[in-house]
Amino acid sequence: MNVFIIGVGLIGGSLALDIQKEFDNAIIYGIDRNEDHIEEALTLGIINEKATNEDLAIADIVIVSIPVDVSLQVIPEVLNHISETCLVLDVGSTKELVCEGISNHPKRRNFLATHPIAGTEFSGPQAALTGLYRGKTNIICEVEKTAFKLQEKALEIFSKIGMRIRYMDPKSHDKHIAYVSHLSHISSFMLGKTVIEKEKNERDIFDMAGSGFASTVRLAKSSPAMWTPIFEQNKSNVIETLNEYIQNLQNFKTLLEENNFSEIYSEMENTNHIKQILSGIQEVKLS
Amino acid sequence: MNVFIIGVGLIGGSLALDIQKEFDNAIIYGIDRNEDHIEEALTLGIINEKATNEDLAIADIVIVSIPVDVSLQVIPEVLNHISETCLVLDVGSTKELVCEGISNHPKRRNFLATHPIAGTEFSGPQAALTGLYRGKTNIICEVEKTAFKLQEKALEIFSKIGMRIRYMDPKSHDKHIAYVSHLSHISSFMLGKTVIEKEKNERDIFDMAGSGFASTVRLAKSSPAMWTPIFEQNKSNVIETLNEYIQNLQNFKTLLEENNFSEIYSEMENTNHIKQILSGIQEVKLS
Repeated sequence: MNVFIIGVGLIGGSLALDIQKEFDNAIIYGIDRNEDHIEEALTLGIINEKATNEDLAIADIVIVSIPVDVSLQVIPEVLNHISETCLVLDVGSTKELVCEGISNHPKRRNFLATHPIAGTEFSGPQAALTGLYRGKTNIICEVEKTAFKLQEKALEIFSKIGMRIRYMDPKSHDKHIAYVSHLSHISSFMLGKTVIEKEKNERDIFDMAGSGFASTVRLAKSSPAMWTPIFEQNKSNVIETLNEYIQNLQNFKTLLEENNFSEIYSEMENTNHIKQILSGIQEVKLS
Repeated sequence: MNVFIIGVGLIGGSLALDIQKEFDNAIIYGIDRNEDHIEEALTLGIINEKATNEDLAIADIVIVSIPVDVSLQVIPEVLNHISETCLVLDVGSTKELVCEGISNHPKRRNFLATHPIAGTEFSGPQAALTGLYRGKTNIICEVEKTAFKLQEKALEIFSKIGMRIRYMDPKSHDKHIAYVSHLSHISSFMLGKTVIEKEKNERDIFDMAGSGFASTVRLAKSSPAMWTPIFEQNKSNVIETLNEYIQNLQNFKTLLEENNFSEIYSEMENTNHIKQILSGIQEVKLS
């Protein structure tokens, strides 16, 4: 089974490691614009061979795991190169534009739009982890537009690496993921920015920061190259979440200014309910 | 050594466990308004005996680990009951009001204001952990106002349980802790609120939430009884941090609206610098 990974970073590299582990006959080919990443991926055993688009004709599976803006250009090119029986997966954090982009491609039925909800704040081949996807959710969009045999192939892989599947239309995916993922990244980046700006001349202050601060700003370590195009592609949903978040923060500030501490208590008590909601989601430990 | 813990929850209970481990001769007495907590603490071996304020005359050390509004009333009463050689510590998240409140007490020199920067989002005796304080920072305020022998006693305990000490005046403590701790809690509570409000009728959506969301809203599980009085006592500093945080979020939203993605990239890249700042702070894993 010839598996091509386009973009051998955290997400693609971790998929490569799991596929190697679960499929004895898998040969992993890596394609990446970054030569250093290809060399690292070879050294780390993430990929077996370096490849180019010209080699895609022999691919059984192609996984496109690159920033979502580059995906929009790369996926149609990949579809142009593959055989009739090859499955092409993308794994990006936005789904509407990518599905739109290939909707009229003659090889649309070779493509499956997926979003494995897994990752860490790190990036590059060295961030790749075996077992990253076990117990995690994978959102699949427009499944009915993919050839049935290729759906089966994809499900076999996801099942073997331990993922549970949810089906969703791309528009709903992008709307909801803005709340449960994209907003968290912005809240974390802006928290980091606020504290760094204030305390930049007083580095000792960070000795006062505990595990709570570390947890809340963890996502502010994420890659700007990956996240800028996500925010761009999901702009209107992200702006909606930001409006609501800012409004809630302003209300909280007004309650403070008005000394309405019973209401502040209630706000926190009502939100404690997140405990039940989160049970089952495992946090990734800081390394 | 008779050690009295007033408030046998996460913070006081964890101190009790570590003191038992490090001092063979320690007998731990528990005082708590919540009868269930006292019973749990006895069952869990956190305390050896249940006690009342009347027993404080035999105390060598008293640790006051209760919500910061209750502390303001309880600490002067405790000082009224203790012997001349007893050390009283508080461990609250705000330091200015507590220091002001006992500044003229005849037993001021028996008191030491501390803030061990440690904890989890859980509360109560069952949340108490052995080793919680190892490698963490303890901020001590107005150390010069405590009798030298009692400073020594406190430092011996903190050193044995593995804490590093930083000295700071109460005003600076409250200002900086608003940035590196109190603001994180509000950003997390309001993130939780925003997502719960939006998705309350669509519980499946939380299947889409990954470890990033879990990490960013972890603090929204914190106790309102503990945090409401902290925000009240540190109101003006907290409002200042909220103003700056909201401003940064609004700027980010404006950049999105204006399609200024190169600046969005820079904002994130500049904040990535938090990686270096955070190295050394260990995140507490979700249980």
